[in-house]
Amino acid sequence: MKILIKHCNLISVEPDRELYEKDIDILIENDIIKKIDKNINEDADKIIDAINKVVMPGLINTHAHIPMSIFKENLDGYSLQEWLTQKIWPAEEKLTDEDIYKASMMSFREMIRTGTTTIVDMYFMQNNIIKAAEETNVRLELTRTLMDSDGNGDKKLEELENLIKEFQGKEENITINVGAHALYTCSESYLPKTIELAKKYNLNFQIHFCENTQEVEDIKKDYNVKNPAEVLEKYLGSTNSILAHAVKLTDTDIEKMKKLNISISHCPISNLKLGCGIARISKLLDEGINVSLGTDGQGSGSSLDLFEVMKFTALLQKGINENPKLLPAYEIIKMATINGAKAIRKEQKIGSIKEGKKADIIIIDMENPVIMPINDIFSAIVYNVKGTDVDTSIINGKIVMENKKIKV
Amino acid sequence: MKILIKHCNLISVEPDRELYEKDIDILIENDIIKKIDKNINEDADKIIDAINKVVMPGLINTHAHIPMSIFKENLDGYSLQEWLTQKIWPAEEKLTDEDIYKASMMSFREMIRTGTTTIVDMYFMQNNIIKAAEETNVRLELTRTLMDSDGNGDKKLEELENLIKEFQGKEENITINVGAHALYTCSESYLPKTIELAKKYNLNFQIHFCENTQEVEDIKKDYNVKNPAEVLEKYLGSTNSILAHAVKLTDTDIEKMKKLNISISHCPISNLKLGCGIARISKLLDEGINVSLGTDGQGSGSSLDLFEVMKFTALLQKGINENPKLLPAYEIIKMATINGAKAIRKEQKIGSIKEGKKADIIIIDMENPVIMPINDIFSAIVYNVKGTDVDTSIINGKIVMENKKIKV
Repeated sequence: MKILIKHCNLISVEPDRELYEKDIDILIENDIIKKIDKNINEDADKIIDAINKVVMPGLINTHAHIPMSIFKENLDGYSLQEWLTQKIWPAEEKLTDEDIYKASMMSFREMIRTGTTTIVDMYFMQNNIIKAAEETNVRLELTRTLMDSDGNGDKKLEELENLIKEFQGKEENITINVGAHALYTCSESYLPKTIELAKKYNLNFQIHFCENTQEVEDIKKDYNVKNPAEVLEKYLGSTNSILAHAVKLTDTDIEKMKKLNISISHCPISNLKLGCGIARISKLLDEGINVSLGTDGQGSGSSLDLFEVMKFTALLQKGINENPKLLPAYEIIKMATINGAKAIRKEQKIGSIKEGKKADIIIIDMENPVIMPINDIFSAIVYNVKGTDVDTSIINGKIVMENKKIKV
Repeated sequence: MKILIKHCNLISVEPDRELYEKDIDILIENDIIKKIDKNINEDADKIIDAINKVVMPGLINTHAHIPMSIFKENLDGYSLQEWLTQKIWPAEEKLTDEDIYKASMMSFREMIRTGTTTIVDMYFMQNNIIKAAEETNVRLELTRTLMDSDGNGDKKLEELENLIKEFQGKEENITINVGAHALYTCSESYLPKTIELAKKYNLNFQIHFCENTQEVEDIKKDYNVKNPAEVLEKYLGSTNSILAHAVKLTDTDIEKMKKLNISISHCPISNLKLGCGIARISKLLDEGINVSLGTDGQGSGSSLDLFEVMKFTALLQKGINENPKLLPAYEIIKMATINGAKAIRKEQKIGSIKEGKKADIIIIDMENPVIMPINDIFSAIVYNVKGTDVDTSIINGKIVMENKKIKV
């Protein structure tokens, strides 16, 4: 199967290319970006005319809870603790396989509709999520969430290890990783076992970390440390890890974290909505820590629209630091693409548009009075494009949405 | 002309009605909402089927600079001072009548496309803005911006007074008010003249106020006060006033301001983008001050999409106060509708859907994977609906957009 995209206004996010190029053609052969050039004349099974549109890498969402689409907007008026104990946990106990499958289908369709092509998930009953991912062709980084606060830690470890073995070398779009829920739900005897599992199979490790003040206090008490990062320092070693949220970090935490092999998945909308606060992203970037973007589950994050997360990320840092020069738009675009790929160690495969990389590409319709006129293309993408302006989405060489119609 | 809207899911924002009503019909006769009831059977020139859609009052944007559409996204990488002196002011000096007219047409179309029906403007060369407003049928609260820092204060006053006289009792949709630019561009001898003009014709007064730290310092020095609100206290009297921004207020400022006849126009996106900070909206509301919403000009505010401003308003207050219970979604909807009407003293005419009020109504298409599923309708409006999801817009009884096609 050959797809030829003609007349692209291209933001490739490739350091070797211009930041923005006009009238470029892209040839896709099966799952691979075969050629990027002016005026490619080659027979193709499908030709897409991208004239007046912007073509860029599919976005990468590094923190979500896929089936939580069904909990969208049920948080208003609740504190975090009330919401969890009165709404989410009782509802989650009743979820059937069918519920998880349908909720995942909704999320994958929402994600495709808004231009995300890769998503990192942390939930349970994962076979139903996998089934929906296979049907919708999304690129999925998946775990069975580990915790032992309910007394069933070892059973979850076993379940995840079986899943890891089952998927080794099997799926193109689905990768299993290791996700521990959080330090306050994993005891100090259990946490090292979860990290060992990641090390054993050389997998990425993900965990919620320092999401709010209460969590930080709990970690200090439970792990008998002064700074939560001491726990990471002690147990992570060189394990490639994604820390979701990281809102409440001290300078000491950041100092320790920059020596580790970690990325921060910044979820600003969820952090605001749950009343957690605003992560110090500008400082983390200054310290050379890789920051990627996440939505969190829709219960707290409202949607899977990463364009909106880009906008919040840029504006919050400018606002709280009272410095409009911080986080230029192009840096934000990198956070939603190549930085996400780095977070999951797939920067050689996805996260930019480059010959030889996987064809994960989105095409954006810019003809809209909210977006026009365009004075700066990168700012237009970050501040004015909405996820629903994405017109066409290609994942692993397959067209999953065309002309805003989802095809999977 | 009779328009009948059938099967509305209605958020009327009327205290005498239910917060949310299903399957309601609305009959519009000329410019007036004639009847709101179940199953209205009446001959109409136009029937709109709103089934599965949400019907609510058109949004009211209480702070904008209409012709700044052409400066959209040219701010990235500049400080506020650099942006003004290197980009905006030199460009503004060259603007022709034709530029202002075309830029205003772009803004009015953007505003209609995103569900706003009334807008408060502060700019100059206002005849071109008026021409565009007349052509697009938007409801406009307009001033000729007053300031004397350039030595031409009295000429501007005269120009504005002539405009006021010209429009007295003339236009249905256009109201002239008095706008002074800011305390740092109006001297203490000039400011009282601007307020006197508002008093003389019983007009609303608007001014930028305490947008950033530098401005507060300048006011203290120029007006020899400890708190900027002392200036308002001294000169405003009972004048109905809209203070745009009000980011940097002390408790003393708020204490003084709550005794005045003022509304705050909160412009969170612009305040973040310019590095000004985050206004203490939750505190202002607690103190009983009317807060409405504004976009500011698109140069700093990015767009005229008030749905996005609603989302930022809610999330920022929850986030910075670390309290997810603050600013429930319905309160936010009021800020974008009836509070805006109160700010401009038109709450008897617009801002809610009520028999006898002007027909300023929007219809929102909810069939979209970002919005669905809907667990709470008010949260769906504030957190998941985008301006571009608005399907149909009626201003003063005239359909200005239908099925997302702008008709003016």
